Amino acid sequence: MAVTLRSADPDFETRFTAFLATKREVSADVEAVVRDIIARVRAGGDKALIDYTLRFDKADLGSLGIAVSRADIEAAYAAADPETVEALKFARDRIRSHHQRQLPKDDRYTDPLGVELGSRWTAVEAVGLYVPGGTASYPSSVLMNAVPAKVAGVERIVMVVPASGGIISPLVLVAADLAGVSEIYRIGGAQAVAALAYGTETIRPVAKIVGPGNAYVAAAKRQVFGTVGIDMIAGPSEVLVIADGKNDPDWIAADLLAQAEHDASAQSILITDNAAFAAAVEAAVQRQLATLPRAETAAASWRDFGAVILVGDLEDALPLADRIAAEHLELAVDDPEAYLARLRNAGSVFLGRHTPEAIGDYVAGSNHVLPTARSARFSSGLSVLDFVKRMSLLKLGPDQLRQLAPAAIALATAEGLDAHGRSVSIRLNM
Amino acid sequence: MAVTLRSADPDFETRFTAFLATKREVSADVEAVVRDIIARVRAGGDKALIDYTLRFDKADLGSLGIAVSRADIEAAYAAADPETVEALKFARDRIRSHHQRQLPKDDRYTDPLGVELGSRWTAVEAVGLYVPGGTASYPSSVLMNAVPAKVAGVERIVMVVPASGGIISPLVLVAADLAGVSEIYRIGGAQAVAALAYGTETIRPVAKIVGPGNAYVAAAKRQVFGTVGIDMIAGPSEVLVIADGKNDPDWIAADLLAQAEHDASAQSILITDNAAFAAAVEAAVQRQLATLPRAETAAASWRDFGAVILVGDLEDALPLADRIAAEHLELAVDDPEAYLARLRNAGSVFLGRHTPEAIGDYVAGSNHVLPTARSARFSSGLSVLDFVKRMSLLKLGPDQLRQLAPAAIALATAEGLDAHGRSVSIRLNM
Repeated sequence: MAVTLRSADPDFETRFTAFLATKREVSADVEAVVRDIIARVRAGGDKALIDYTLRFDKADLGSLGIAVSRADIEAAYAAADPETVEALKFARDRIRSHHQRQLPKDDRYTDPLGVELGSRWTAVEAVGLYVPGGTASYPSSVLMNAVPAKVAGVERIVMVVPASGGIISPLVLVAADLAGVSEIYRIGGAQAVAALAYGTETIRPVAKIVGPGNAYVAAAKRQVFGTVGIDMIAGPSEVLVIADGKNDPDWIAADLLAQAEHDASAQSILITDNAAFAAAVEAAVQRQLATLPRAETAAASWRDFGAVILVGDLEDALPLADRIAAEHLELAVDDPEAYLARLRNAGSVFLGRHTPEAIGDYVAGSNHVLPTARSARFSSGLSVLDFVKRMSLLKLGPDQLRQLAPAAIALATAEGLDAHGRSVSIRLNM
Repeated sequence: MAVTLRSADPDFETRFTAFLATKREVSADVEAVVRDIIARVRAGGDKALIDYTLRFDKADLGSLGIAVSRADIEAAYAAADPETVEALKFARDRIRSHHQRQLPKDDRYTDPLGVELGSRWTAVEAVGLYVPGGTASYPSSVLMNAVPAKVAGVERIVMVVPASGGIISPLVLVAADLAGVSEIYRIGGAQAVAALAYGTETIRPVAKIVGPGNAYVAAAKRQVFGTVGIDMIAGPSEVLVIADGKNDPDWIAADLLAQAEHDASAQSILITDNAAFAAAVEAAVQRQLATLPRAETAAASWRDFGAVILVGDLEDALPLADRIAAEHLELAVDDPEAYLARLRNAGSVFLGRHTPEAIGDYVAGSNHVLPTARSARFSSGLSVLDFVKRMSLLKLGPDQLRQLAPAAIALATAEGLDAHGRSVSIRLNM
């Protein structure tokens, strides 16, 4: 059973603040180990990758090869369930259509003084995509990371995925191929991040690394940041459902459990104004758990991090939702647009009773890589913007320089930067 | 004298690669000290801020107050040179006009299946702006950081600036006021970053922290990242000038020195196809150094990190420029647009012979906070986008859910996430 907080209780603010501050992950201290792995890959190149992979993944890349071949990919198509491959194509197409709308536009204009200004966007030249192995090796995540990079125009999309015992999920390879990944390597962990950042004999370095991973991967990404760009560090997943009493408790319970089954550290929160409905949802959660393959994980998540928040008026949920800044926010109410208009912080918002969050995980077209752990207060989900960057442009002629010069020289002088002022005045014989 | 590399030399690639890898900053190991300061500010609040400020800045905030008052700001206006205040207003207005063009547009549409998708942008609710003290306390940087936040619609823009001996530059206070900063506190260092991230009795926490600082500030920003957002970690400044032999050597020398005077770790690079011109620029650099107040700094930067690269054809400069990925790139050539069209990586590009980089530092309107240390390969200069974030939106009715359900359920099943599938199927009585 999840914890219950009531907004009417006198200690609600204290309890809610403590709830917000709850840490759901123990961050293992792997800094030193990771630092060593990165140094060894930089020094040893392919040989270090082969050694680490034998040790950590029990796979012999000396015989398998570091790179996945075209034949490997064809074999993966042959091994995959055709219906699932079709579903991946359907998802890929929808993700592509949606993300094409995110391509930023160049801007070039001349201001009233005749100064030309502008912004020009270009794609990052090469991107590394980390894909976890084992049960967290999700083909849908491959699409969500690779398709926006492809839409952005990234020329090299380089995927790394550990091959435990030599095996990579066929669907992961198929998803990579469908998404337009250009190179795939059978490596994982901090050693794979090091290879992407610094290169080896086989792997040319990339400019940015994205994708989720375990504590070693996250630490490695932090350590190579600066040499390459990185995406956000993903925490455990979470959903906040704001629901009135008119919902079917079973539907809402299913949504809470869909989040909880991800991970024992996942978090599902229900805010409602109806105590009887809340009790019915809790009962439905317990009932549905009985038939869920991942019941143990989901039950632990719901017990340890789940919460039901009872408010007097459902509109009181909105300021709480902004403070929670959930990765996923469902608005299971009659007029979700009215709620949306008053919201500021959420990664993705699912409007109305027929928009379960899981649709967004797979086939809606929107991205499922979203800010966790309250970071929606200051960041956004993955998009095409993560794979492009902007040059600012400036062009003056002699007349424009003459008009801007006095203020520029005044400020350079005030800041004690005389050479700055001189680089302007010397062009005007001032 | 700067180092010279010749693209025709057989060891050019080796030397250029080594040049790219040159570290210009020694990163002091201040992690442990910073961790302690942050913990003490979290525990001690205002009292810890007052203690640290007395110790590090020799200022008694117990009597001065932590917060800068309206009267302090009025006194700063009275103390400032009126011409410089006018120059700041001129710069502020131009920065505002340019950045207003960067405001992203919401997107809402219905796809052919009737699925509603969208993106909705909202401002970060509160932003902290770190401003260094001493000689690096630049009013222009206050404008460059605060104006885009204001344009984005950030409600609380909270500035911190250390008051060494109790003193803050009047122009910094004036710039903050002109830019629309809403709160100013007399604190600096890791303690200021901790106060912004976690709050104290006097200072409410913010959601994102931006602005340059020393090694302690940079380490503190890294440590609080996650609790709040941060901007990029700024390295020493740099300029790359691509110039043909038709330029006045004195103009180009002035531009190289304008960068070099910032910091002994700054870097100025000239690429040209004309050896006689290169020699003339070097002679001009030496001549101009003689009359430069910051000659010692500029000479050290030019000697230790400056470079002249001689290429056979000036077009050969372009792939080198993409690898250097300079913060500032000047194209002092007849047809800069033709060069621009073939470039991918640079923070800001200054087109033509009458666009010295220093104009962009102050009054052009574009932002002077730009990616350093080759990070223009994967990141962009500061903009309005750094102060907004996007919610993705999704809305389905029963018909749309029915159409998307089979693919979603197939993928959920393939990934072993049965509760995901159930949250879809339960709404369809499947």
